[in-house]
Amino acid sequence: MSGFVSFVSAGPGDPELLTLKAASRLRAADVVLYDDLASGAILDHAGERANLVAVGKRAGRQSTRQQHLNRLLVDYAATGARVVRLKSGDAGIFGRLEEEIEMLRAAGIGYEIVPGVTSACVAAAQAGIPLSRRCTSRRVQFVTGADASGQLPANLNWGALADPESTTVVYMGKRTFPLLAAKLIEHGMSADTPALFAESLGHAEERLVRSTIAGLAEQLGQDTGATTAAVILFGALAGGYPR
Amino acid sequence: MSGFVSFVSAGPGDPELLTLKAASRLRAADVVLYDDLASGAILDHAGERANLVAVGKRAGRQSTRQQHLNRLLVDYAATGARVVRLKSGDAGIFGRLEEEIEMLRAAGIGYEIVPGVTSACVAAAQAGIPLSRRCTSRRVQFVTGADASGQLPANLNWGALADPESTTVVYMGKRTFPLLAAKLIEHGMSADTPALFAESLGHAEERLVRSTIAGLAEQLGQDTGATTAAVILFGALAGGYPR
Repeated sequence: MSGFVSFVSAGPGDPELLTLKAASRLRAADVVLYDDLASGAILDHAGERANLVAVGKRAGRQSTRQQHLNRLLVDYAATGARVVRLKSGDAGIFGRLEEEIEMLRAAGIGYEIVPGVTSACVAAAQAGIPLSRRCTSRRVQFVTGADASGQLPANLNWGALADPESTTVVYMGKRTFPLLAAKLIEHGMSADTPALFAESLGHAEERLVRSTIAGLAEQLGQDTGATTAAVILFGALAGGYPR
Repeated sequence: MSGFVSFVSAGPGDPELLTLKAASRLRAADVVLYDDLASGAILDHAGERANLVAVGKRAGRQSTRQQHLNRLLVDYAATGARVVRLKSGDAGIFGRLEEEIEMLRAAGIGYEIVPGVTSACVAAAQAGIPLSRRCTSRRVQFVTGADASGQLPANLNWGALADPESTTVVYMGKRTFPLLAAKLIEHGMSADTPALFAESLGHAEERLVRSTIAGLAEQLGQDTGATTAAVILFGALAGGYPR
């Protein structure tokens, strides 16, 4: 008897952005392994019998945490349980899903992925703008601003990132944005390229800041607050509409 | 008395991938303007009194349709109605949302955007793969394979598209993929780069085909069937996991 794991995308925080399918998987779950970012009212969809297990990133070192989590996933599934692994945003985008899938495959445990709403789409929606526009913003790209050690990833494709005809969304890039912006400008992007900072999407403390890549870099460089869940969107559309 | 328009993302077809927020907006709507791709069981969420208006692309020429649709949006909202403009996938990605927003702004009508699950995330989920992977697939990008006239857009950023370290998803690119693939190979991408074709996502006739960019180009070049809603995903992750 072997269990089954549903990787369920929880969206970026607003419980109303959960899909019907995600809610249904939560209702049927025996065990829910959830992150800090995918919790709160979202967990209310789980049945009363469900075992809710926090596997938040704040619990210990990143590497230990991931090993522990992989172990938990396999151990719970091996009992025959219906396991929901709740992941914030869309599970397939910058969620280290690959590592968890490989662990399950090695253990011979079946899985499915329930897609969801990724933070980029929510940030744009909250700002009232689309991510693409005919002719002028034809490519939409998502990158992460932090590698395993929290630094700006090396060897980025600058021709892709500094392209004025794309809309770029940087995940987990609050800390490294000053460096990213400097490199973008060095690679020919205008310092005045519109940029939008979106923090704590769907939470009471949600904050949107409109600026330029240079202006936002300066602002974030002086920000010594805690690292929060944030995305940064830049490109022509990030400027929004005149009031 | 002026109405209000909610641009509501319907996801790519599977009614279960609707968000709770989208369902709630449909329940409260006086009028729902919907596309061919965002219909069926999704419309069951609308209240009994709601006026359901099809504005499908198949109804007439593209340009006429868009003008007519813009007119309808403004006219319905001007009556003070709560209008839902239901758009397939995520409304902000390749949905020509900008044009509809500008029309509303010109008419002084308020709006909101309810984000949703975009086809790229669904295609990857159905194939059991993530869209990103640490170190090897660090950039995720979406492009459209068809401009206003149905041709491959001119002046694409080939350095961005032919990058083996990205996962690329092409929307509306079934017809033009043979040309796109030839250009990618010309710009240095390996002909053996894994590619995944995903058609009619969330519908009974859903079809996933795993190939390479060269193999898929050959297959689609011989396909004379109707143009359906399809996305093409290419990059290392599109190869999936060994069976």
